[in-house]
Amino acid sequence: MTTDMEKIVLDHGSGGKAYFRLISDLLVPSFDNPILARLDDSAVLDVGKNRLAFSTDTYVVDPIFFPGGNIGDLAVNGTVNDLAMSGAVPRYLSLGLILEEGFPTDDLEKILRTMKNAAAKADVLIVTGDTKVVPRKAADKIYINTSGIGIIPDGLNISGHNARCGDKIIISGTIAEHGIIILIQREKIEFESEITSDTAPLNSMVQRIIQASDGIHALRDPTRGGVGTTLNEIAIQSNIGIDIYEESIPVKEEVAAVCRLLGIDPLYVANEGRLIAFVSPDHVEKVLDAIRRCEHGKDAAIIGEVTSGHAGKVRMKTRIGGLRIVDMLTGEQLPRIC
Amino acid sequence: MTTDMEKIVLDHGSGGKAYFRLISDLLVPSFDNPILARLDDSAVLDVGKNRLAFSTDTYVVDPIFFPGGNIGDLAVNGTVNDLAMSGAVPRYLSLGLILEEGFPTDDLEKILRTMKNAAAKADVLIVTGDTKVVPRKAADKIYINTSGIGIIPDGLNISGHNARCGDKIIISGTIAEHGIIILIQREKIEFESEITSDTAPLNSMVQRIIQASDGIHALRDPTRGGVGTTLNEIAIQSNIGIDIYEESIPVKEEVAAVCRLLGIDPLYVANEGRLIAFVSPDHVEKVLDAIRRCEHGKDAAIIGEVTSGHAGKVRMKTRIGGLRIVDMLTGEQLPRIC
Repeated sequence: MTTDMEKIVLDHGSGGKAYFRLISDLLVPSFDNPILARLDDSAVLDVGKNRLAFSTDTYVVDPIFFPGGNIGDLAVNGTVNDLAMSGAVPRYLSLGLILEEGFPTDDLEKILRTMKNAAAKADVLIVTGDTKVVPRKAADKIYINTSGIGIIPDGLNISGHNARCGDKIIISGTIAEHGIIILIQREKIEFESEITSDTAPLNSMVQRIIQASDGIHALRDPTRGGVGTTLNEIAIQSNIGIDIYEESIPVKEEVAAVCRLLGIDPLYVANEGRLIAFVSPDHVEKVLDAIRRCEHGKDAAIIGEVTSGHAGKVRMKTRIGGLRIVDMLTGEQLPRIC
Repeated sequence: MTTDMEKIVLDHGSGGKAYFRLISDLLVPSFDNPILARLDDSAVLDVGKNRLAFSTDTYVVDPIFFPGGNIGDLAVNGTVNDLAMSGAVPRYLSLGLILEEGFPTDDLEKILRTMKNAAAKADVLIVTGDTKVVPRKAADKIYINTSGIGIIPDGLNISGHNARCGDKIIISGTIAEHGIIILIQREKIEFESEITSDTAPLNSMVQRIIQASDGIHALRDPTRGGVGTTLNEIAIQSNIGIDIYEESIPVKEEVAAVCRLLGIDPLYVANEGRLIAFVSPDHVEKVLDAIRRCEHGKDAAIIGEVTSGHAGKVRMKTRIGGLRIVDMLTGEQLPRIC
């Protein structure tokens, strides 16, 4: 370890640069196996004649209830989406609860009800679980781990490593809503708004676009670290250059207004119901069309493309015609976003 | 919900009666599906032509370092063992970390190294992970979730629901060591002792006894709540009566001494490297023999049998010839034991 990482700081949980370093310099070398080292949203496992996707995520969002959802559907949708990004059909989830002593049982029931509904909507079963209780101040209310298993259809090979030159880049909807509503709620910002979290399951959208086209190379949901960080991850994994166009990135006016007010770049704000697809150029229109016909896809847009130059880097053509490098998120924009 | 469960109390994490009620009255009905409702240590899933075991556990043990192990090998062995109790060969683990801001990176490295070694010893791969960081006082140092996937060999049907009248009950070694060493360390009890945690992977032991005999009906590792609670769970699940013999239960003299000193019943103290096997009577000697030849099995003993009467209840014949009911653990004997 380098000496500037003596202690864990909030930044290590950001999903940005410090997180990426913690994962690549410490976590992955610790276990040193090629499946983990791929760093896709789920591991791909050969089990008998099946290929399975396996993924885990722990949810520590604060506040636990927010407009558009709560920690319960966030935990179901988040892991469903991580599985779906490998093209898998999500099937089974586990549920690991950490409860703080004194947590109201009513709130727990409400969260579990939300999880049940989210699981039904995403067509997955919660099949195994574990509950731990810790004393006051040893947790903040409730933390939820969900791990999941999905089945990858034969012949499919979708990965953050597979984006290639010429690919068009689609985002499935407007960005930054989840992160901004969490920020507004947590900091009690006085702002009349209709913004709600975008938390949603994306597995049916993924199945539809896979049926529509065999030209999908990479999928990822831009959660912690936002669209900017996710594009950087794929630029590194696929060793490609990415150009995006600021004016084509869909942001709701209300969300853009809050971002301007607070000096936040929506490119680095977490989404919980959006996907980014890297698609071969001759397939992009039919994939875009399929996404737009999905429940959460009506605002889908082409936001960029893979270029032959600047491998490992993301550039943005700005509204006023400039060109700037979009780096990974540096510093903690907002802890406990999911 | 009954009104005496308005808030979560430490007791709900004990693995005992309150825990069992939380699980059966709230968690299981919330999701209402037959796989979860079986309440075995792992869910059994039909995936293509394979039967998979899937399990999850979150580790919140305090202290995180203790004689005989740390939270890292505890987290690997615990989930490996939950998978093994269905007869599965554990294959893949996920790793979900919650880190408290300020946690020393050196300690994290040490824990990850221990996990790597434990995974190698149990012959499983850690293939996917997630890391969250929360502010100071929103967690206590580090919590670890591991979820796991194992493959169940064809034709095997081992479950807490399958114990039957006449079965002999084997424990694979001396009991109560993990719980007692955690108690001694946490409470800083001045006691010269050689006691170490029994944390260990049991999957190779399980594979050996399955090869030795097809008369194994139920397996379970008596963790939170101890042997007493685990036997009660199986008595309920299989709707059988259980008799155990106090004098045949192996307890190291040092452990027994601490228990006497503190007024603790070793029957309710957690184990992290022991299994209980329900075996048809004509197979018991060969299973016992196979266990005794395993690394962690030399102190294995037959501790009781399944009887025709008192279904759902566990009785113990005491050293002085009495007969008493062994109930589930009531009240929190020791929080954050695993």
